[in-house]
Amino acid sequence: MKIDLRSDTITKPTPGMLDAMMHAEVGDDVYKEDPSVNKLEVHIAELFGMDSALYFPTGSMTNQAAIKIHTQPGEQLIADKYAHVYNYEGGGVSFNSGVSCKLIDGHRGMITADQVEEHINPPDFYHSPLTSLVCLENTTNKGGGACYDFREILKIRKVCDDNGLGFHLDGARLWNALVVTDESPKDYGAAFDTISVCLSKGLGAPMGSVLVGKQKFMDKAMRVRKVLGGGMRQVGFAAAAGLYGIEHHWQRMADDHKRAQELSIALNQHPDVAHVEPVETNILIFNLRPDADELQFIERLKAEDIHISALGKGKLRIVTHYDYTEAMHQHFLAFLKNA
Amino acid sequence: MKIDLRSDTITKPTPGMLDAMMHAEVGDDVYKEDPSVNKLEVHIAELFGMDSALYFPTGSMTNQAAIKIHTQPGEQLIADKYAHVYNYEGGGVSFNSGVSCKLIDGHRGMITADQVEEHINPPDFYHSPLTSLVCLENTTNKGGGACYDFREILKIRKVCDDNGLGFHLDGARLWNALVVTDESPKDYGAAFDTISVCLSKGLGAPMGSVLVGKQKFMDKAMRVRKVLGGGMRQVGFAAAAGLYGIEHHWQRMADDHKRAQELSIALNQHPDVAHVEPVETNILIFNLRPDADELQFIERLKAEDIHISALGKGKLRIVTHYDYTEAMHQHFLAFLKNA
Amino acid sequence: MKIDLRSDTITKPTPGMLDAMMHAEVGDDVYKEDPSVNKLEVHIAELFGMDSALYFPTGSMTNQAAIKIHTQPGEQLIADKYAHVYNYEGGGVSFNSGVSCKLIDGHRGMITADQVEEHINPPDFYHSPLTSLVCLENTTNKGGGACYDFREILKIRKVCDDNGLGFHLDGARLWNALVVTDESPKDYGAAFDTISVCLSKGLGAPMGSVLVGKQKFMDKAMRVRKVLGGGMRQVGFAAAAGLYGIEHHWQRMADDHKRAQELSIALNQHPDVAHVEPVETNILIFNLRPDADELQFIERLKAEDIHISALGKGKLRIVTHYDYTEAMHQHFLAFLKNA
Amino acid sequence: MKIDLRSDTITKPTPGMLDAMMHAEVGDDVYKEDPSVNKLEVHIAELFGMDSALYFPTGSMTNQAAIKIHTQPGEQLIADKYAHVYNYEGGGVSFNSGVSCKLIDGHRGMITADQVEEHINPPDFYHSPLTSLVCLENTTNKGGGACYDFREILKIRKVCDDNGLGFHLDGARLWNALVVTDESPKDYGAAFDTISVCLSKGLGAPMGSVLVGKQKFMDKAMRVRKVLGGGMRQVGFAAAAGLYGIEHHWQRMADDHKRAQELSIALNQHPDVAHVEPVETNILIFNLRPDADELQFIERLKAEDIHISALGKGKLRIVTHYDYTEAMHQHFLAFLKNA
Repeated sequence: MKIDLRSDTITKPTPGMLDAMMHAEVGDDVYKEDPSVNKLEVHIAELFGMDSALYFPTGSMTNQAAIKIHTQPGEQLIADKYAHVYNYEGGGVSFNSGVSCKLIDGHRGMITADQVEEHINPPDFYHSPLTSLVCLENTTNKGGGACYDFREILKIRKVCDDNGLGFHLDGARLWNALVVTDESPKDYGAAFDTISVCLSKGLGAPMGSVLVGKQKFMDKAMRVRKVLGGGMRQVGFAAAAGLYGIEHHWQRMADDHKRAQELSIALNQHPDVAHVEPVETNILIFNLRPDADELQFIERLKAEDIHISALGKGKLRIVTHYDYTEAMHQHFLAFLKNA
Repeated sequence: MKIDLRSDTITKPTPGMLDAMMHAEVGDDVYKEDPSVNKLEVHIAELFGMDSALYFPTGSMTNQAAIKIHTQPGEQLIADKYAHVYNYEGGGVSFNSGVSCKLIDGHRGMITADQVEEHINPPDFYHSPLTSLVCLENTTNKGGGACYDFREILKIRKVCDDNGLGFHLDGARLWNALVVTDESPKDYGAAFDTISVCLSKGLGAPMGSVLVGKQKFMDKAMRVRKVLGGGMRQVGFAAAAGLYGIEHHWQRMADDHKRAQELSIALNQHPDVAHVEPVETNILIFNLRPDADELQFIERLKAEDIHISALGKGKLRIVTHYDYTEAMHQHFLAFLKNA
Repeated sequence: MKIDLRSDTITKPTPGMLDAMMHAEVGDDVYKEDPSVNKLEVHIAELFGMDSALYFPTGSMTNQAAIKIHTQPGEQLIADKYAHVYNYEGGGVSFNSGVSCKLIDGHRGMITADQVEEHINPPDFYHSPLTSLVCLENTTNKGGGACYDFREILKIRKVCDDNGLGFHLDGARLWNALVVTDESPKDYGAAFDTISVCLSKGLGAPMGSVLVGKQKFMDKAMRVRKVLGGGMRQVGFAAAAGLYGIEHHWQRMADDHKRAQELSIALNQHPDVAHVEPVETNILIFNLRPDADELQFIERLKAEDIHISALGKGKLRIVTHYDYTEAMHQHFLAFLKNA
Repeated sequence: MKIDLRSDTITKPTPGMLDAMMHAEVGDDVYKEDPSVNKLEVHIAELFGMDSALYFPTGSMTNQAAIKIHTQPGEQLIADKYAHVYNYEGGGVSFNSGVSCKLIDGHRGMITADQVEEHINPPDFYHSPLTSLVCLENTTNKGGGACYDFREILKIRKVCDDNGLGFHLDGARLWNALVVTDESPKDYGAAFDTISVCLSKGLGAPMGSVLVGKQKFMDKAMRVRKVLGGGMRQVGFAAAAGLYGIEHHWQRMADDHKRAQELSIALNQHPDVAHVEPVETNILIFNLRPDADELQFIERLKAEDIHISALGKGKLRIVTHYDYTEAMHQHFLAFLKNA
C-alpha cells in the first residue's frame, strides 16, 4: 500500500471522473467549440460571480498569464516571500512578463494591507520599477496551507484601489480555503480582479486550471494563452474531469483537512519532531529536532512505502488528498505512534 | 451530415482511441512519473532515432520552446514568409524569445539552401542581429501541404553546419509528408537538431505535441516547458491517445490525401474556380475567379453544411482528415459536379 | 587629405561647435537640471510644434524607446524591408520590446498607405500578432537618401487613425529631407505621434538624438530611457553641440546634397559603374558592372585615401557631409573623370 | 553659496577637465575609431589587469549590460536587498534580461559567502530559476558608502567558482573604496569576471561608465551595448574627461571622505539626530529622532541653501564630492554646531 503524501497533484481520476471524461462532448477549443470546456468556463465564472473564465493546461500558466495581463515589462508586483509565482514557476514573472517581485516577509505566506502599502514604489520616482500588481496566494503552499483572514484581503483590495494596482489571487488551493472559512466564491470574485483556480490538485482532475476575472482583464487572456502555447483542441475530456471534481470532490476535502489535523497531533508527540506548524487545510509542515537524522527519518517512512517531501534544513511537508484513504491514514497514524 | 474541412485539428477521438485513453496508466508528469507520457516520449525518440523527446500541450508550445532553446534574445531565425512560427503563433518568436525573423520569399512555404545562405547576417557585423537558427515547416500549412525535397533539406543542413546555425523542423504535419515521400522518420531525425510533431492534427489525438531532439538541446527543454507553463500532471490520458494515433491513424492518412486529390480535380472543373494549387497531402488551396463572389460561394457550401476556410482575397482552403468520411466525400464531390 | 565618405556620422565638431560646448551651462540631467539639455528639448519641441522632447545618447535608443512606448510584447509593427529599426539596431525591436516586424517590399525604403493597410493583421484574429505601430524612415538610409512625398505620409496617418495604430518617424536624417522638400518641421510634428531626430549625422554633434512627440507618448519616455540606461548627467556639453548644429549646420546640408548630385553625374560616366540610384539628399548608392572587380575598385579609391562603404554584391554607398570639403570634392571628381 | 550634497553625480567639470575635453582627439566610436575612447578603455583594462574594457553612456547601462552578458532569461542573480541594480535601475534586470533577483538581507548592503551559498537554487530543481550570477556593490550606495572586507569577496569568488556562477561588481564608487582600503584595482580585476566603474560620480566626468572584464564576457559586450542603444559617435570628449578624472580627481577623494567623517561627528552631536551610520567613504546616512520634524529639518537646511536627500521615514543622506569645498564644509559645520 503506497502512501504518497508528497503532493495533492498526484491524485488519479476516480472511476466516476473517468466516466465523466469518457462521455464528455468535445470540440476544437481553439475555435472555442468545445462544449465541455465552455460549460466549465461558464460554471466557474458564475460560481465566482465574475465576467468570464478561460481554461489553461496548468496552474503556472494561469498565474503567468494573469501577471502578463496586469503588467508591462519593467513593472513590479508585490507578493509574499513564499509566493509560488516567485519561487516555483521557473522565473516566469521575469521571463514571460519582464516584471520584478517586491517580496514581503509575511506570516506563513500571507501579507497585510499595511505591508503592501509600505512596499509600493512612489509612482513618480522613475528610478524604481512602477508597482502595478499585488498577488496573494490562498491557501499558501509554502506557508503550510494557511488561510487568509478575508477582512485583510478586503483591506488590501482598498490599498490596490487607492493606488491603481491590479489584484490577482493564486487560488490553486482556494477550494480548500473555501471549505474551512465562511466566505463564498462570490466573496472572492468581488474582491479580486483575477483569480486562478486549479483543477488538478485536491479536485483530482488529471490536468487544467482556470483563470476567472473581470472582462477588462479577461479580454486579453486569449492572446496571452495563445502566445504562451496554451490553446489546446478537444480538451473537453480534461475539462469534464474538472467539472466532475468541483461537483464531487470539493466538499470532501474536509476529510483531507481532518486527516492532516490528526497527523499533526501524532507528529507533535513524535520524539523526532521539534515543531509542527498549525494545520488549517491539507498541508502540514513540521520540523525535526536538530539532533534527529532527516535522511533516516525519511528512509524509515519509505521503508513503510510512505512518501513525503523534504523542504530542506529538517523541514518536511505532508499533503493529504483523496487518494490518501482512511486505511492509509490509520496505518500512518499507527506507525507514528509506534515510532 | 456536417462536413467540416476547416482543419484537421477538429477531429475527435475514435472509439478505439477513447478506449486507449480510458485504460491509460497515468501518474504525475511533473515528477516524470506518468508511464503513458514516458512511453510516448521513448517511442517518438526511437522512431526518429533521436536522443530524447518531451510532451507538450500544444504544437505552438513545442515550436516556441525549440526556438527558445536554440536562440538568445536579439538573435534572428531564418524561415519562409509563410512560416507558422511567424504567422500563427501570436508573435511568440519575439514575445517568448526576443528573436526576430528573416523571412524568405520561398516556393509554397519552402526555401532553398542557397536562399538560406544568402540571408545569414555577417556574424561580425553587430548592427544586425546574429543569425542562429533555421526553421523549416514540412508539410507547409500556408503553402498548401507541400512537401520538401529531402535533398534540399540535407543541403540546408550543410549550410547550418558551415555557419553554426541550429536547425529546427516544425513537423506539425510531418506525418503526412512521411506517408507520401520516401524518407523515414530516422532520416529526418538525422537531418535536424530538433523536430516538433503534432498528435492532434491528422493523428486525431485530442491534444498534445512532442519535441524530439539531440540531447544537447533537449537538456534545456524541461526548464523551458516549465517557464511557459506546459508541465501538466496525469496527462497520460492524452499521451495514450497520441500513441494510439501513431499506431492506427498514421498510415491511413493516404486516404485523406487521395480525397484531397479528388477534390482538387473536381474544383478545377468548377466554374467559379480560377486555380487550384497542386495537392501533395491533405491540404488544398484554391482561388476563385475574380468575378466569383467569395461570400456567396462559402454560403452555398454552408447551406449544404460544408465548412471550409477563407484565407482572404478569394483564396480558400480545404483540409481533409479522418472525420471526413467517404460518404461525406462523395456528397461533396457530387455537390461540386452539380454546381 | 583623407576623404571619408563612409557615413555622415564621422563628422567632428567644428571650432564654433567646440566653443559652444566649452561654454555650455550644465547640470545633472537625471534630475532634469541641465539647462543646455532642457533648452535643446524645448527648442526641438517648439520647432516641431509637439508637446515635449527628450534627449538620448543615440539614435538607436530614440527609435527603440519610441517602439517600446507604442507597443506591448507580442505585437507587430509595419515598416519597409530596408528599415533601420529592423536591419541595423541589433535586433532591438524584438530584444527590447518583444515585437515583430511586418516588412513591406517598398520603393527605395518607402511604403504606401495602401501597402500599410494591406499588411495590418485582423485585430480579432489572435493567432497573428496585433498590429500596433507603423514606422517610417525619412530620408531612407538603405534606400539611398530618398524622401517621402508628404501626401503619402498624410494618407498613412489616416490609415493609422482608422486602425488605431501608433505612427513613428525615424527622422535620423529628417534634417536633410526638410532642406530639399517644401514641408516644415511643424508639418511633420502634426503628422506623427513621435519623431526621432539625430544630432550626430549631418548636424555634426559628437553624439545625441532627440525623441519629440505628443505628451501621451512622451509621458512614458523618461522611464524607458532610464531602463535602457540612457539617463546621463552633465550632458549639456553634447546638447549644446546639437543646438549649435541646428543653428549653423542644418541649412548648409544643401551643399552636401549638391556634391552628392555632382558625384552621381561623374559616377554615371564611370566605366565600372552600371547604375546610380537617383540622388535626392546626401546619400548616393550605385552598382558596379557585373564584370567590374569590386574589391579592386575600392582599393583604387583607398590608394587615393578615399573611403566609401560596400553594401555587398557590387553595391556601394557614398555619404556626403560637412567634413567633405569643396577641395576634397574637386579632388574626387577629378579622380573619377580620369578613371 | 549653494551647497549641494544630494549626490556626487552633480559635480561639474573643473577647468582642467574642460580643457582636456576640448583638446581631446575624437573619432567615430561606433567604428571604434575614437582615440580618446580607445585610450580610456585600454587604460582601465590595464589598471584592473583585465582583458578589455568598453565605454558606456551610463552606469546603469554598464550594469545592465553585464547582467545580460552573464545570464539568460528566466535565470536568477543574487544580490543584497539594497542593490542598485535591483532598486534604482528601473526594473532593468527583468526588463532587459528577463532575470529575477534573490535578495539577501545583508549588512549595510554587503553580503557574505555563506549567505550567497545558502541562496543558490538547486540547479536540478527546474521549478526554481537557475542561479547564474552574483552581483556585489562596492562601495554600497544605499548601505551608506560601506566597503567590503576583501577577504569576504575572495570567499564569494570561491562560492561562484564552485557553483559555476558569474561574478560581477557594481563598482560605481569602487574608486572611493580603493582610496580607503589596502587593495589595488588589480586585486579586484583578479577577483571578478566583470566590473563596472563610473566616471561621473566622484571622478567628476560629465557622463560615462566603463565595463571591464575577462575577454570571454567582453566578447558579447559590443552587441549588448548596440542593442541597448549605447553606441555613440565622437564621444572621446567625455572619455577624455573620465581619463582626466582618474588622473586628477581620484586620490583627492580622501578629502571627501574626511569631510563626511567630520560631518558625521557634528551630526552625532545634533539634538535632532538619533543615529549616524558609520562613515567609511563619502556617503553619510543618518536618522532623525522620532520626535524631530523631518520636513522642518530639511527646510532649515534649504534656507541656508544646503541640499541633502531624504530616503524616507526620517532617514537622510549626505554625499560629499569635489564641488563641496572646504569653505562650504566649514559653513555647514558651523551651521550644525549652532543648531
